[in-house]
Amino acid sequence: MKNRNHKYALLLVVAVAATSTGVLSHAYAQQVTDGMDGYVKGTSGVYTGNPNECWYEEEPGSGTFFPCMIDTGDTAWMLTATSLVLFMTPGVAFFYGGLARSKNMVNVLGMTLIVMGLISVQWILWGYTLAFGPNDTDANMYMGALDYLGFNKVSHLAPLGELGACTDQDYYALRSPYVISEDVKCSLSWPGTIPHQLFAVFQMTFAIITPALIIGGLIDRIKFSAFVIFILLWATFVYDPVAHWVWGGGFIGGGALDLNPDLSPSFALDFAGGTVVHITSGFSALAGALVLGRRLGYGKVPMEPHNIPFVVLGTSILWFGWFGFNAGSEVAADGISVSAWVVTNTATGMAVVTWMLMAWAHTGKPSVVGAASGAVAGLVTITPAAGWVGPMAAIILGIAAGSVCYGCVAFKNSRKWDDALDVWGVHGMGGFTGAVLTGTLASPHIWDTGDGIGAWTGTPEGYEQQAINVLGALISVGYAFGLTIVILKVMDAVWPGGIRVTPKEEEIGLDLAQHGERAYVNE
Amino acid sequence: MKNRNHKYALLLVVAVAATSTGVLSHAYAQQVTDGMDGYVKGTSGVYTGNPNECWYEEEPGSGTFFPCMIDTGDTAWMLTATSLVLFMTPGVAFFYGGLARSKNMVNVLGMTLIVMGLISVQWILWGYTLAFGPNDTDANMYMGALDYLGFNKVSHLAPLGELGACTDQDYYALRSPYVISEDVKCSLSWPGTIPHQLFAVFQMTFAIITPALIIGGLIDRIKFSAFVIFILLWATFVYDPVAHWVWGGGFIGGGALDLNPDLSPSFALDFAGGTVVHITSGFSALAGALVLGRRLGYGKVPMEPHNIPFVVLGTSILWFGWFGFNAGSEVAADGISVSAWVVTNTATGMAVVTWMLMAWAHTGKPSVVGAASGAVAGLVTITPAAGWVGPMAAIILGIAAGSVCYGCVAFKNSRKWDDALDVWGVHGMGGFTGAVLTGTLASPHIWDTGDGIGAWTGTPEGYEQQAINVLGALISVGYAFGLTIVILKVMDAVWPGGIRVTPKEEEIGLDLAQHGERAYVNE
Amino acid sequence: MKNRNHKYALLLVVAVAATSTGVLSHAYAQQVTDGMDGYVKGTSGVYTGNPNECWYEEEPGSGTFFPCMIDTGDTAWMLTATSLVLFMTPGVAFFYGGLARSKNMVNVLGMTLIVMGLISVQWILWGYTLAFGPNDTDANMYMGALDYLGFNKVSHLAPLGELGACTDQDYYALRSPYVISEDVKCSLSWPGTIPHQLFAVFQMTFAIITPALIIGGLIDRIKFSAFVIFILLWATFVYDPVAHWVWGGGFIGGGALDLNPDLSPSFALDFAGGTVVHITSGFSALAGALVLGRRLGYGKVPMEPHNIPFVVLGTSILWFGWFGFNAGSEVAADGISVSAWVVTNTATGMAVVTWMLMAWAHTGKPSVVGAASGAVAGLVTITPAAGWVGPMAAIILGIAAGSVCYGCVAFKNSRKWDDALDVWGVHGMGGFTGAVLTGTLASPHIWDTGDGIGAWTGTPEGYEQQAINVLGALISVGYAFGLTIVILKVMDAVWPGGIRVTPKEEEIGLDLAQHGERAYVNE
Repeated sequence: MKNRNHKYALLLVVAVAATSTGVLSHAYAQQVTDGMDGYVKGTSGVYTGNPNECWYEEEPGSGTFFPCMIDTGDTAWMLTATSLVLFMTPGVAFFYGGLARSKNMVNVLGMTLIVMGLISVQWILWGYTLAFGPNDTDANMYMGALDYLGFNKVSHLAPLGELGACTDQDYYALRSPYVISEDVKCSLSWPGTIPHQLFAVFQMTFAIITPALIIGGLIDRIKFSAFVIFILLWATFVYDPVAHWVWGGGFIGGGALDLNPDLSPSFALDFAGGTVVHITSGFSALAGALVLGRRLGYGKVPMEPHNIPFVVLGTSILWFGWFGFNAGSEVAADGISVSAWVVTNTATGMAVVTWMLMAWAHTGKPSVVGAASGAVAGLVTITPAAGWVGPMAAIILGIAAGSVCYGCVAFKNSRKWDDALDVWGVHGMGGFTGAVLTGTLASPHIWDTGDGIGAWTGTPEGYEQQAINVLGALISVGYAFGLTIVILKVMDAVWPGGIRVTPKEEEIGLDLAQHGERAYVNE
Repeated sequence: MKNRNHKYALLLVVAVAATSTGVLSHAYAQQVTDGMDGYVKGTSGVYTGNPNECWYEEEPGSGTFFPCMIDTGDTAWMLTATSLVLFMTPGVAFFYGGLARSKNMVNVLGMTLIVMGLISVQWILWGYTLAFGPNDTDANMYMGALDYLGFNKVSHLAPLGELGACTDQDYYALRSPYVISEDVKCSLSWPGTIPHQLFAVFQMTFAIITPALIIGGLIDRIKFSAFVIFILLWATFVYDPVAHWVWGGGFIGGGALDLNPDLSPSFALDFAGGTVVHITSGFSALAGALVLGRRLGYGKVPMEPHNIPFVVLGTSILWFGWFGFNAGSEVAADGISVSAWVVTNTATGMAVVTWMLMAWAHTGKPSVVGAASGAVAGLVTITPAAGWVGPMAAIILGIAAGSVCYGCVAFKNSRKWDDALDVWGVHGMGGFTGAVLTGTLASPHIWDTGDGIGAWTGTPEGYEQQAINVLGALISVGYAFGLTIVILKVMDAVWPGGIRVTPKEEEIGLDLAQHGERAYVNE
Repeated sequence: MKNRNHKYALLLVVAVAATSTGVLSHAYAQQVTDGMDGYVKGTSGVYTGNPNECWYEEEPGSGTFFPCMIDTGDTAWMLTATSLVLFMTPGVAFFYGGLARSKNMVNVLGMTLIVMGLISVQWILWGYTLAFGPNDTDANMYMGALDYLGFNKVSHLAPLGELGACTDQDYYALRSPYVISEDVKCSLSWPGTIPHQLFAVFQMTFAIITPALIIGGLIDRIKFSAFVIFILLWATFVYDPVAHWVWGGGFIGGGALDLNPDLSPSFALDFAGGTVVHITSGFSALAGALVLGRRLGYGKVPMEPHNIPFVVLGTSILWFGWFGFNAGSEVAADGISVSAWVVTNTATGMAVVTWMLMAWAHTGKPSVVGAASGAVAGLVTITPAAGWVGPMAAIILGIAAGSVCYGCVAFKNSRKWDDALDVWGVHGMGGFTGAVLTGTLASPHIWDTGDGIGAWTGTPEGYEQQAINVLGALISVGYAFGLTIVILKVMDAVWPGGIRVTPKEEEIGLDLAQHGERAYVNE
């Protein structure tokens, strides 16, 4: 507040904020007098009237609805898992920030924070319904219906699923020593033991971390303003659709890729997001790096990681949070969650050792940044496989993660693609490797449901699963890479001065140039 | 240990420590031979004899008591939530430390650690009973009875609440698909599904973080010794009473503010501590800043944040831990916890975006420190509302958080109050804004119990709730601000040389001057 | 990749990695066609055929087996606790790294990461079976049988324990308000309510952090390559056996130390690892420091902590994660977990205050590094006692932790042992103090099972418990210290050039010399 102009600017923004708060409150009050309260559209109280949720009427015609049962153990674990995955995004900030140069550290942190801010709101307003909205028409193979706009009809009390007697719910029959009451109502579907809203925000944490991962390909040179708009477009047009295709009942997960309907495999296996999260972010980051062009001085001036402790801090937070990511993707606290936890850690440990040994053999020294990258590569690669493979398969996946991703990073360097922090090599190719190997190694000995029959079984089912998984991954690669190119090219054309900062700003560093802040000040 | 004197000093302190350990052990052994074991005062075994806890006798007259049922899912979530909130206090240390100058970093960390140490013990010894002790007499409107001194009668096995048959406990009847046994005993009250001791330490984590928040107003100039005594006094005379008034059955939460007994609202709504935690700490920090006076060179020398990555690290830990804070305040793993989780994240995301846009419009650059401050402002503002509002209301609260707190910080700067790290603007005024808007936006569509009817409904009940909430907040503002002024003025008068360090020490920095340590050493 | 040779090296390692992946996949496929899938060796599907796990046959002779019940609340808490303990190891990295000099920071981080990588795999392959394998023969007093090699027969679905009707399982009868079904099968043993595999990986996190703790005694001077081999040897020959002796049914926990069979105490009490984790790591670190010899310039050049914020960050992560360590060691979400949580925090708070006051009295200034060390000392000391003492005893343990460990650190300095980061003083002697005081203070008023009768009761049982605990601790001290000396001496003799880096490398710092990396780069 150095001068009068700033005071006026402040008055203006306060006025704008006050007005919008007022308008919004008014609109909100309008809504709630209809008995809707912003997102509850039911006939009374907390009932949402959502036919995809599990509600039952006390007496027929009474108009009083109760939510079906939820399980406190599952809810406890999913509250924790959701918090853990949210915490991963700052982990990305430190992993990337430490690898960047100190003059761009604040910018990396700022990009991450604004992704957390924007997508936390975007998901509520329209992201969730695009990805997980009801599948009422054929068009919903590609995008969910809009019923859940603004979290409308997304109950915090009732689970998703079809209404039934608890005695008919496998979950309670198989997992509990107690006598189940005939009278009590349960959801008969998955995820039917936690509130709908908890499932919706668990998915939100994935929608947040995925665009944050792209940052690694864009650092040091994208305008912050352009980044903000890019993220909103990317989340809406890349992430939300792909999430719908794979997990929301769209065509990759919903049966349209069933190459041979006579055999049991009918959809691509992606337990916790190898395709949805890592392939999309990795290939989009590469697209971004190619559209933006190389950093000034690339290959000429040294661009060492500026703070290895922060790299390791970020890795540690990611490793910790990834247990929520993978073991949470079961959306329950059961044996499959446990198996997902175990193989996640096993693959990661093996990948740390593998990458470090590769670097040792290759460069003569065991790189600690390499160990950290290996950990992330292992975590990425096990992600699609987490619920379908056992510990021995996880060791194989860990070796594959360490060696394939190491090789891809070396390949990228030789091609002089300036995907600065190796989002493509680690996330894109790690996710791809994991998606392929999930089709290979998935095992009915882990989850005995008929799903999860990989090519190792040597059966026609196994080969079909392998083919579907490869196909699903390739479709996602093409879509994410292609559409990101288009989005960024169009933005670059229409954005005043383009989406890249000036060479002078790049020289100074984006911290001062874009934010007027310095990461470290000694006094 | 440079010289002989230090050796003698060491011998002395070892001797003192050994003696006190001996004396304490002896006293302890005395107690336990009474069958008390430090805190269990029952007739036998683990029975505490606490009538406010839920115990039942196996056979009448047998003298053998069993604890009522607890729920493993709720206990699992509350163990996690309690750990998360404890982890927030180091988050405060990094948030504040990063904003401070590097020469005072160690001091900020040290003040936070000693708060964790002191209050962890103070709460066990006398804090908990002052705040949550039984309400036996009229005087207990202001302070709890002393029954729980030293965690006496605070069982780790039995829940709080009135003894009853589990079939009469709504919790089990409504939330579980199982047949409830007629013979089994349950607590009929809230929080009746987790052990009493877990509730007591969940509350402890709030008692720890609140004084730690005050540090932001005192940095760079308070003597460490004075700080230690101040914290003990403040916790005992400010925090414990206000917690009792609002949550412990005292006059703000217990009915004495019921302005119109004919209407249903009868107490101030504060779901997770907007009043108890944020108003008290924010206004106390302002009081501290005013009593201590401005920092040397305030407004003349630059006082930039010395380490923005640490600011963001602290913010991230706070955001993560706040899910325990808000969703844990339900003291169960149910739909209200889920709703609290969701609105916490939504308001925070919106506040990040709002504050960054405000700073962008106002100063021309999107500040990353601003994004971090916005996150904290959003977290603070949603806190009192967390269990009573839905996602749309959370967006309104997020906008209010970002804009009001931004404005308050600017106002504080214009008044030249040296509340160095904006505890007043963010916590005090954020908490106040949240307390007021909770009275406005609370909705029975979230929690259909008759509570939570905000002024938006346009009903007399809504207006009464609004008035009670404003009144409760104002009482807390006045009490915290006034009493902190008194405590610090008295301390400053009696403390040798006053409670502020010398100008020379302030110049050197408190790290070297007070602790003989430097945050960063290059070699 | 500066030259052609590196390209060839890369090709070579890629080839090796590809080949081994292929070979492993082939071997794996071989295995799975036997219906084994790497670790499941049952007759069909997911059944492991492990008689120590709880499985039941649907119909006699049907060959279809189902796992016994697990509890979702317990599983939720143990998934969380296991993640928390895993997160502690990076906490050790920052605690130690901050205390080290900046030129060795990367090395400390790298040693920690490689421990996480190696032991994550070692535990799966052979560590778990050595420590917790079945006790079939007398030789298993010293080491578990090899049934669980490669996590074979370690189910992710079934709990450990003896098959029974759930109505006969105390757990469900005592802790739940529901009617238990006569037909449903439960494990009658402990830990019988979570999947076997979850117990196995909870134990893994202990096996990971323990060798990581030793790093503090070896920093600044051990070759990274030697460290890698040392860790594998140490984990296999020190940690795994001691874990077996104390927790796996071996001689310390399994009855061989029952000094007076007529009295009830029959094994050493170590709730969460005072002996297994802290005594072994602390005395092994001292052994390492003595074998390696003092650092160059020890006592002459200053070796201040290079980054106190990282010390506090590490401490904070440790404090947070330790709730998983201690409250998780109950392997359930019940009142004993709660009690363990409470005393863990109480002792830690008291130890922070004690150590800081000791340092204040001794050196004239309240050291913040001292507060952090005090926290760790408190956490260590309460560890063996966590489930058996109450809050008042925890205060005594906290005072003992702060004063004894402070004294031991001073003693070590006077002896000029260069256990650089005080692993012996804090972990070794803290663990020893805790083990002794657990025998003194353990109380049946906390856990009313006949176990946990400490010497304070003045009964013969109490004195026997005290003696067994001291004896168990001494055996572990001798074994860990002695065997570590032998391992390192032998390695030093056979290792080309010895296991210590050259003086020149030590001068440069291990970051550049061993890893070719620098922790901090300014640009």
